[in-house]
Formats: sequence, C-alpha cells, structure tokens
Amino acid sequence: MHTEPTISKDLPQPGDSYVQSFARGLAVIRSFNAQHAEQTLSEVALHAGLTRAGARRILLTLQALGYVASDGKYFRLTARILDLGFAYLSSMPMWDLAEPFMSDFVKQVQESSSVAVLDGTDAVYVLRVPTQKIMRISLGVGSRLPAYCTSLGRVLLAGLEPHEVRSVLQQSEIRATTRNTLTDIARIESCIALVREQGWCLVDQELEEGLISMAAPIRDKSGKVVAAINVSGQANRTNAQEMRERMLQPLLQVAQSISKMVISTR
Amino acid sequence: MHTEPTISKDLPQPGDSYVQSFARGLAVIRSFNAQHAEQTLSEVALHAGLTRAGARRILLTLQALGYVASDGKYFRLTARILDLGFAYLSSMPMWDLAEPFMSDFVKQVQESSSVAVLDGTDAVYVLRVPTQKIMRISLGVGSRLPAYCTSLGRVLLAGLEPHEVRSVLQQSEIRATTRNTLTDIARIESCIALVREQGWCLVDQELEEGLISMAAPIRDKSGKVVAAINVSGQANRTNAQEMRERMLQPLLQVAQSISKMVISTR
Repeated sequence: MHTEPTISKDLPQPGDSYVQSFARGLAVIRSFNAQHAEQTLSEVALHAGLTRAGARRILLTLQALGYVASDGKYFRLTARILDLGFAYLSSMPMWDLAEPFMSDFVKQVQESSSVAVLDGTDAVYVLRVPTQKIMRISLGVGSRLPAYCTSLGRVLLAGLEPHEVRSVLQQSEIRATTRNTLTDIARIESCIALVREQGWCLVDQELEEGLISMAAPIRDKSGKVVAAINVSGQANRTNAQEMRERMLQPLLQVAQSISKMVISTR
Repeated sequence: MHTEPTISKDLPQPGDSYVQSFARGLAVIRSFNAQHAEQTLSEVALHAGLTRAGARRILLTLQALGYVASDGKYFRLTARILDLGFAYLSSMPMWDLAEPFMSDFVKQVQESSSVAVLDGTDAVYVLRVPTQKIMRISLGVGSRLPAYCTSLGRVLLAGLEPHEVRSVLQQSEIRATTRNTLTDIARIESCIALVREQGWCLVDQELEEGLISMAAPIRDKSGKVVAAINVSGQANRTNAQEMRERMLQPLLQVAQSISKMVISTR
C-alpha cells in the first residue's frame, strides 16, 4: 500500500506550478485541526506557510467548491471534506470483509485491535475495533503513529526490502519517548529483521509507558505485506509474556483469515 | 455547518482556471471507490470526466504528493488521503465530547445513533455509535443520505430559513424509494415546518422499507442548528409509536446535553 514511484521519470517536479498550487490547496485543508478549527485568512497563511494573497486565493477556491465555509472573517472546513477520505476507505472493500473477523478476535482477547498501512515513516490506522462500544472516530481512522517504534509499524517495515527500511528509518524523527524506546538505527533494523523472520512483532512500552502492542502482517496472494493488524493492551493488566502466550495464536489466525480475503492488486 | 457564501462577491468563478484545476484534482480523488479501487489512466479520465492528458497530469501530481500510488499501469489512492478527512474531524473537537453521551444513549435505547451535518442536499454522518461493537467506518463517517427523506436531514433543513429549504428541495433528486416517501415539495415543506415547531422528527420508512428513524437538533449557544442526532431502528422490532413513546425523551435529552458542549463559532 505504500507509494511506488515506478514511473518517476514522468513525475512532475516539485517546482512545477501545477503541482505547487495543488500541494498548497491540500496544505490549506491540512492547516485546520483541533487547535485551529476556525481560522482567519492570516492564520491560514501562517499555518500553511503561504502568503496572504496565496492563502486567500486557495480559501476562496475551496469555498467556491464547497469544501470551506466562512462567516466573512473566519474560515472552517465543511463535511464535504470527508468525501475525500471516504473515497479512500471505500476503495478498500477488503476492510469491510475484515471487520467480522476482527470483532470476533476482540471478543476473544478482550483488547482493542487495529489495522494500519504504511505511509512514508508512519503507520496510518484504516480500521479499528475497540473493546468498548464507543467509536472514537476522530482519534481512530486516519491517525498516524511513527512506524519505527510501534508493532504495526515494524511489521509494515518488515515487508520492505532492507535498503527501503534503512531509507525510512533515516527519514524518521527518532527519539526516546520512554526508557524502552530503541533509538539506534542498527538495533531497530535487527529488530525488524527478527520480525521478518518470525512473522510477528511485540513492542513493550517503546511508544508510551504502559502500552504493549503485538502485530502481524496481512499479505496479498503474492505474499506481499499490504497492511498490519495489532492487539494492544495495558502493561498493568497484561505483561508482555502473558500477551504473547494468550494472544499470539489468535492474532496470527485473524491475520491469516484477513489475508485470505485480500484482493491483490490486479 | 452549511456553506455560507457571504463573501460571494469575491468568490472565484467556476470558469477561473485555478478553481477548475483544483476541482479536477479533487474529482480525480473522488473517482476512486469500491467499484473503481484501482484504475488505469483511461478509467480515471472516464470516471472524472477529464481528457486523458488532463487526468494524467493530475494523477502524476497526486503521485508526486504521495496521495496516489501506481504500479505503472494501475493507480490507487494511498492512506495519506485520510489526512484530509482527519483535518475536518479533528477540527470538530465537540464530537469527542459528545461520544460518552451518545454511548449512554445507545445503551439505554439499544438502537444505533448517529450525528450528521448538512452539506448541500445531503445529511453527512460525522459520528456513529452502533449497538454492535463493530466499527463500520467505511459505511459510517463520511457517508451521505438525501436530506429530504431522512429524519436527520429534515431536522437539519428545519434549521434553515424557509426560502433556503425551498432551494435545497429544488436541487434535490426527489424520488420515491418506498411507498411512504414524500415526493411533493409542498408536503415535505409542511413536514419540515412541523419539525421546526415541535423540535424533533420521525421518519417512518421513507428512505428504506423497514427503517424507522427519529432525530433532534443540536444547537449552538445562539440557538442555530449545527448538527442533528438520531436513533434508528427496524420496523419489525419497534413501530413508530413505540419508538416515540420509548425513545423521544432520551433523544431530546442527549441532544440537549450535546448542545451544551457545542463551542459556537468564535
């Protein structure tokens, strides 16, 4: 699922005016978030790194297309923006088929489970089945975690060639967020090589104190890793050994069941 | 939450080349869906209504920006697209606060509940708490239903001025999908006037045979309708009268609780 720039000889260059203006439009959309839900023209220019004139043209364009609304002073995104993400999610029908399997798995292990794909240096959630009934959409699908220190991320990285792993790690902002976080690239590479060999990954409190997570690959028919599925728990309820003993087999099973349904790239 | 073109005198016109090229880029993104998850250049051109040359330029731009991946022949969206929808959802932090209330409501009435906002002629889901644990993301957040024949839609329309309602209904593709669907604009307007007066709406099998739904408005501090919340059930389990008797008060209560948390436009 990661970008494969195989026709890169044809790719427009970053300096191309069309690419630039489109990139700026998307940057304006991305400048809105929880801290900046409503912004003035100047704020958008500041947060998207544009001139006032450039930001104004894009905001009025987005407004003309119905993606932005304004009271004349403040601008905000409209729900139409969701169509874009919806286009992506609905283009992956396999996740619909995966849900019943994940739901059974979550019932069995009584911990939350997520599916993620790789985008650059991040694992991006595409599906999440929490143990609680609440759908935390806004904290769920579409959110990102660094690949280098998460079980989902290391499983996704293990699906790449070693030189690609090196390249992703070199681009990653590696920092110790807990006393367990691996920060040495060679050690992270060894860990990923082990994941590639054993077919699963357990990360014990490297992203966040108290959080343990175990992941396995979802593969297409050719064996290529297209996504990863995990189970995550709290260290104070379940330690790493218990998680492995109790949840590894069910995790590998659900990963295999979902893999069987993956419709490979044509 | 609907578009308010209050600075329309300044808005770029549809003929503006910048607006056009941005609109085409977004149309290319939206051309991907469950039926067309992977497309050749020609297929994208066909489904987005573009020339091959136009589609090619946009696809290569989206690829250069990491929103599209290709094996050289087929193009598909990448997970980076989700960032755009995520920008919208995270710009509405009130829905995070709304979830615990919705979850309690769903437990109480044992039926699913959703929150939607108005976009053009549609009600667009922004939050959904199902009775079952499965998070049907891809069929949930971001999906659209016509406003004219749904309880969420009629509550949202009741928040508009009568001339705005008329305008939305005139733009709607009104058709009878069940024997109950109201198709006469004057009758739909009367129904919406009643919803405005009584502060809630029940729709009995107008969208789909067997589906009953009841909705109430979520208002900001000025009293303006910013969203609607509903509860939906199956006619063979709960008829319209039972739904009103058993669920109307809890629905109005949860709508009021969420309304109290709505941070109005600054």
